[in-house]
Amino acid sequence: MDGWFEDKHTENVKLDIKVRSVLYSGRSLYQKIDILDTYEFGKILVLDGIIMLSERDERFYHEMIVHVPMFSHKNPKNILIIGGGDGGAVREIMKHPITSVNLVEIDEKVIELSKLHFPELSSELGGDRVNINIAPGEEFIRQVKNKYDIVVVDSTDPSTIAKHLYENRFYSDCFSALRPDGIMAVQIGSPFYIPSIIGSIFRRLEEVFPIAKLFVGYVPTYSNGFHSFAFCSKKYDPIENFQKQRYEHLNINTIYYNDEIHRSCFSLPNFVEGILSKE
Amino acid sequence: MDGWFEDKHTENVKLDIKVRSVLYSGRSLYQKIDILDTYEFGKILVLDGIIMLSERDERFYHEMIVHVPMFSHKNPKNILIIGGGDGGAVREIMKHPITSVNLVEIDEKVIELSKLHFPELSSELGGDRVNINIAPGEEFIRQVKNKYDIVVVDSTDPSTIAKHLYENRFYSDCFSALRPDGIMAVQIGSPFYIPSIIGSIFRRLEEVFPIAKLFVGYVPTYSNGFHSFAFCSKKYDPIENFQKQRYEHLNINTIYYNDEIHRSCFSLPNFVEGILSKE
Repeated sequence: MDGWFEDKHTENVKLDIKVRSVLYSGRSLYQKIDILDTYEFGKILVLDGIIMLSERDERFYHEMIVHVPMFSHKNPKNILIIGGGDGGAVREIMKHPITSVNLVEIDEKVIELSKLHFPELSSELGGDRVNINIAPGEEFIRQVKNKYDIVVVDSTDPSTIAKHLYENRFYSDCFSALRPDGIMAVQIGSPFYIPSIIGSIFRRLEEVFPIAKLFVGYVPTYSNGFHSFAFCSKKYDPIENFQKQRYEHLNINTIYYNDEIHRSCFSLPNFVEGILSKE
Repeated sequence: MDGWFEDKHTENVKLDIKVRSVLYSGRSLYQKIDILDTYEFGKILVLDGIIMLSERDERFYHEMIVHVPMFSHKNPKNILIIGGGDGGAVREIMKHPITSVNLVEIDEKVIELSKLHFPELSSELGGDRVNINIAPGEEFIRQVKNKYDIVVVDSTDPSTIAKHLYENRFYSDCFSALRPDGIMAVQIGSPFYIPSIIGSIFRRLEEVFPIAKLFVGYVPTYSNGFHSFAFCSKKYDPIENFQKQRYEHLNINTIYYNDEIHRSCFSLPNFVEGILSKE
């Protein structure tokens, strides 16, 4: 039974993806969840009508949100992921010689369904060094001080249940949860479609972190492909402090990220620079 | 009378754009031409059902295909554009102190309609230093030897009437039409959707030019936003030979291109590097 899934970019633009079959459609305590098998992108995970990931390009996204902060830190050992219940960020983290990962996901159902339908993403979720907490990220983070080397905020968009994860209070709490040389990476959104939202999130981050930079990556199944992330750091600049030796030594397997991308993802087109500098 | 325009990325993916009105719909000697006014992207030009440009993002594309080669050349004076009847590439060229531009467009109707509907693109088409030739690019180029500093191939896709512009013969003729330090830039397509086509075009270019590199840019209205171009050169490397002083002195007005983008657009994700190295 073929049909089309519509991903609305705006009221006036949508991406239509041809669906082979519906693997799951239901509602958790927090959100509507659909898992569809598509012709072009393989299986896709849809939360409240918005594509979260596709099998074909999820690595573009997960590699960027994980390896950019990880290779900007001298020796990242204790990692926190807020969101990321699909497991993709954990999988990328485990390519590094870390001590422990805490995953804090609000919706247990996402983890359960990912284990069932996305084994290539969720494969590391049962590992010894991985602790899973089912809790709202903004509540969990308040209890932690001076503990993590890296915090990755791999949440849904600001317009969703994740809205508290885009507020000043949350960013201050993340700052406190990080060690003195800690780094946070945050998924933000499309600089093309939601420039003013990205501008205001970025200014909030700048208030909290001495170093705040936007970096960009190509993720075809997100709004027209051009995605942005924030790099927030207490001490390390991502380019000056790129850990080239560790990068070469680890020789991790990636399909998107590499040492040149680590640098170039911080080069922003003029229209994006304009968003960040607007008052 | 609202409707939706469908841009097919593949058989299984399409971008739907809400249309405010149809400004023109007809057929030239060569192709079907539609000009639509849309809510999100302003006016769009559609050739044989494929979006060629939108008012909102055409500068992303035209700036990249023009300024990357122009600022990689020590002193570009005589320029050839193959295709580009809309005028956007000419407009960007005219931001440089050049001597002359030859525009070779097969379809006069595109020029005529652009002058009527896209004044911001076609504004420079009537200029003193601009010569317009209505001819097939592959025939025009055969008559010219050792004349141009820069050739810009701003054509439609390989699957269209422009197919001769992706053949070995044409690339050899472009090589001959360039001076000993000449540079050619070519629009190619999406590395995500047509990797094998891009790979084979690139290997053809490598056979002809001693320096051939792929560079990428974000163009939202093209297949999921990630677009690629080829930089082909007889002598100059685009990064080593970046003309920083001229760039700073000219201080051109751009919304996408800048000196950092000039460098970073040559950093390719691993999956794109893989396309280029495949035999």
